[in-house]
Formats: sequence, structure tokens, C-alpha cells
Amino acid sequence: MAELQASMRIRAEELFRTLQEEITSALEVLDGSGTKFFRETWERQHGGGGITMVLAEGNVFEKAGVNFSAVHGDAPDSLNDASVPLQFFATGISLVLHPRSPKIPTVHANFRYFEQSDGASWFGGGTDITPYYLDVEDAVHFHQTLKTACDKHDLTYYPRFKTWCDEYFFIRHRNESRGIGGIFFDHLSAENPAESDQLFAFVADAARAFLPAYMPIVERHKDESYTEAERHWQLLRRGRYVEFNLVYDRGTRFGLETNGRTESILMSLPAVARWEYDVHPAPGSPEAALEEVLRHSREWVRQ
Amino acid sequence: MAELQASMRIRAEELFRTLQEEITSALEVLDGSGTKFFRETWERQHGGGGITMVLAEGNVFEKAGVNFSAVHGDAPDSLNDASVPLQFFATGISLVLHPRSPKIPTVHANFRYFEQSDGASWFGGGTDITPYYLDVEDAVHFHQTLKTACDKHDLTYYPRFKTWCDEYFFIRHRNESRGIGGIFFDHLSAENPAESDQLFAFVADAARAFLPAYMPIVERHKDESYTEAERHWQLLRRGRYVEFNLVYDRGTRFGLETNGRTESILMSLPAVARWEYDVHPAPGSPEAALEEVLRHSREWVRQ
Repeated sequence: MAELQASMRIRAEELFRTLQEEITSALEVLDGSGTKFFRETWERQHGGGGITMVLAEGNVFEKAGVNFSAVHGDAPDSLNDASVPLQFFATGISLVLHPRSPKIPTVHANFRYFEQSDGASWFGGGTDITPYYLDVEDAVHFHQTLKTACDKHDLTYYPRFKTWCDEYFFIRHRNESRGIGGIFFDHLSAENPAESDQLFAFVADAARAFLPAYMPIVERHKDESYTEAERHWQLLRRGRYVEFNLVYDRGTRFGLETNGRTESILMSLPAVARWEYDVHPAPGSPEAALEEVLRHSREWVRQ
Repeated sequence: MAELQASMRIRAEELFRTLQEEITSALEVLDGSGTKFFRETWERQHGGGGITMVLAEGNVFEKAGVNFSAVHGDAPDSLNDASVPLQFFATGISLVLHPRSPKIPTVHANFRYFEQSDGASWFGGGTDITPYYLDVEDAVHFHQTLKTACDKHDLTYYPRFKTWCDEYFFIRHRNESRGIGGIFFDHLSAENPAESDQLFAFVADAARAFLPAYMPIVERHKDESYTEAERHWQLLRRGRYVEFNLVYDRGTRFGLETNGRTESILMSLPAVARWEYDVHPAPGSPEAALEEVLRHSREWVRQ
């Protein structure tokens, strides 16, 4: 592979590895329980490896997983119809945080760099929140923080990536979104070294916007009380989160199908989830208000 | 469609509808709580309908769903590459019972008849159990009851359908079976009216073997006590059940992809499930013994 790309591999890997440390350190402080992330370093049989970090049964976080990986090897058959077998390199950070309180949204973020031996390379990523109760101020703050990070690089990014996020995190069999979105992008490629630097700078800024986008939402709600009924609703909604991840999420399905590290992939699933037959919240309730916003995506910030 | 097949449609539909009544009545008695199945009759927008029956929060059963359907219409695109659009008719019964006690296995059964307007028709089905703690006597009883029903019709059925079951209910990304099996068969077709009658008689006997195969297992364990730790293990194992159903089960995925009735399809999911990072039971524990049998399928009855 070209020197430019080798250099990007190193820069991307370093960015994501550093972010894993920054994010887990900040989350430990935010959790406030003194519980530390459990850290497991693993190797991939066919090349590379990763570091899986998990915090369970904290004060704020019932289950939080932050995974870093940098893997390489033969590209899976699904990408591999060329006569010369493709090689790939992929590095990324992926996290899902499931707070215990139904007043705090679950959040997901993933940023990644992918490169093939035929010269193709791209970035993908994004972050999105899944509230159990809608708080418009939270939604606006989350989206505004991401928009500010996007706007610094390209004014078309936020509107494109916000729409992409709404389309991607959609649970077709429920006809509803997983949550209230954020940004999502994939296959962002650069045409030349200057563009490549700009793209990297954007991905770094978007990834660094995760903590300022999410942490104030946790701070606002972490000391709020909640009822058993609210907790019950959260567990039912978490069932939908499981449905999205196992039925639709491309990263999850690709990982499971290509013999990825199951424990690191399924770290995204909540500690507890519930399913009941045909539940419908009472009209006019806060639960019904959440369902309404999941069925009709909104613009949270002025474009 | 030919008269023979029209007649088989009626016979199969009647069999499965009657079975739904027989099974739910027996389960209500077995549950012993006085709780009755909630019954919802539904219509399918594009033809036919069904009856979904759910018992939640019983004495024995934390969540039990028994679904009957008889639907018809245009075959989905995945089956439909002919120039004349195929029509289909499908009827079946499908059930999943999740007992509250970790000492009682979860059980699944499904029997179905499928017919296409090009003349093709077949039966499919089976039943399998998923224990949380291995009880060899239960396993032998379940398999022996099914083998007896199979042997009455064809001595090759049980060995073929037992192996098919082990292969089908396999969670590849965990490298383990969903449970300890039973029987599974699909695309069983008849060549002539006499064979068709024989096939129907076999399916009816296999489906009628469900209650005698499962009920004595419930009876044996329903008054056993269990610990919080055993309940916790059950919820973790139920997470694997969710993984199988959402990632691999063809009926579930086909239903979700073809705009099936989501609530009836996902009735199979447990009331509560748990996921934790990288759990391994202590060597020599009953939990480890279960994992061992899920990794290496056994012959439970003499062939």
C-alpha cells in the first residue's frame, strides 16, 4: 500500500486508541462510583487485535462498553470477487453506554477507518442517542454539538449525516427509529493527500465532539429519581435496541458473519431487556410522546 | 390449485387450529394460576389471518405464546422469479414457552403447511427444548417421545430429523447449540395422494407428541426451588435464545423481512433476558455442564 495510506493507518489507529483512553477516563469520573473499566487486550487469529473495555454495574452506567480494534488480513469473501485476494486494514472505536436510569439516554458512537490493498480507503462513523423519555433540550444540545463540529469542516455535512443517521437507525419491522439520531456517515473517501488530511481532521473533530455532546445530558439527569414503571418502560425499549442491533446493524451482522470477536461485538447489548406482547403506552403519556418522535423524525437545530 | 391440495389446505388448517386449542387448554391447566391465554384474532392485509394467544405472568409460565395462522396471497419476491407471479398459501402453529423457573426448559414447536400456485406443496416443523440446567432424564424422555411418534411412520425420520434439528438450532457466533434439540424437518413433499395422506398423518402425530413430550418435564420440575444465581444464569442463557431467534431463525427473519405481523413473530422472545461481558461458569459447575452439552450434541435415545 502507498506511503500516504500507511501513514493514515498509523494516524487513524493512534486517534482511535487515544480516544478510547480519553473517553473511558471521562466516563469513570462521570460514573462516580470508583468502578473502573475492565480492560481486555485480545489478538485476532488472522491479524491484528484490539482492546475491549467494559464497565458494569456502575453508579450511572449499568453497562458501558468501549472497544478499540486495529485488524488486518484477507478481506472477507463478500468483498472479495477479484482474482487477486484483497487484503484489508480496519481500525476503529466503537462504544455503547447503557445508563441505569431511564432518564438518561443510551448512546452509541463508532468511528472507523478502512483500507483495501487495491488502494481504496474510507472513513465511516457517527454517534446517536436513544432516549427513553424525550427531553427536547437534550436533543437540541446533542445535535447542536455535532452540527458545530461538522460545520467547521463542511456546511453540507450535518444535514447529510443527520438524514443518513435517521435512515440507518430505523427499525423497519417496528416502523420507528431506534432513537432520535445524531450523525452517521460511511465510505467518505479522499481524492488526494490534502483532502485526506481534511477528512481525517473532520473525523477527529466529530469523534472528539462525542463527550461534549453526551456528558452534559448525563449530568443533567443523573440525580433525577425514577419509578419502577419508568424502569420497566426503559427495559421494553431496550428490547427494541437489541432488535435493531441483531437484525439490522451492519457492523454487528458483518462481525458475526465473518467470525469476529463475539464478546466485543455483542458488548453493545444492554445488561437487561424485556419483551411483552403488543404494548401500547396510554395516549398523552410521556411514553407515547417518545413513540411519536420515533415515528416522525424531527429537525432539532436550525440548518 | 388441484382439489387434492385444496383439501389438504383445509385439513392442515383445521389440524393446526385444533392443536392451538388443545395445547393452550392443557397449558392453562398445567400453569395452575387461573390465568388464561389472552386471545387476539388478526387479519393479514394481503390475505388471511391468524389467532395469537399469549399467557403472561402465570405460575409456571413467565411468557407463553401460541400462534396459529392461515395466510395467502402473492408469494414474496424472494420466491418469485417466475414470469407469472406465484401465489402462496401457508398455515401453521408456532409456539414458544418461557417458564419462570430455570429448572424447567424453554420449549419451541412449529408445524406448518405451505403450498404454491405452481403446484409445489410441503410440510415443515419440529419441536426442541432449551434447558438452563441439564437433566438427562428430561432429555431422554423428550427425545424418546418424539422418536416413538416418528418411528410409527418411518424409521429413518427420527435420526434424520434429530440431526437436522441439531444443525438448524446452532448459534454459529457462539459455537454452541441453542438447546438439546428434538426434531426439525422442512420441505417434506408427497408424490401422490396416498403419500400425501401418510405425510399429513405423520405431521399430525409429531405435533400431537408435543404435549406428552414436554408436559411431564414441567410436572417434574415445577415445584423445585431455585436460587437467585440460577435465575441469573437463566436470563443470560435467554440472551442466547434472543440471539438465535433474531440472527438466524429463518421463520423470524423471513417474517420480519416480508412485513409479517411483528408482535406475533416476536412473541417468541423471552419476557426478560440479560447480557454480560464474557461470562464463563466455574469448571465442574452445573452451568459448565450445560455449556458442554451445547457444544457437543449427544444421542439421547438408542437408534
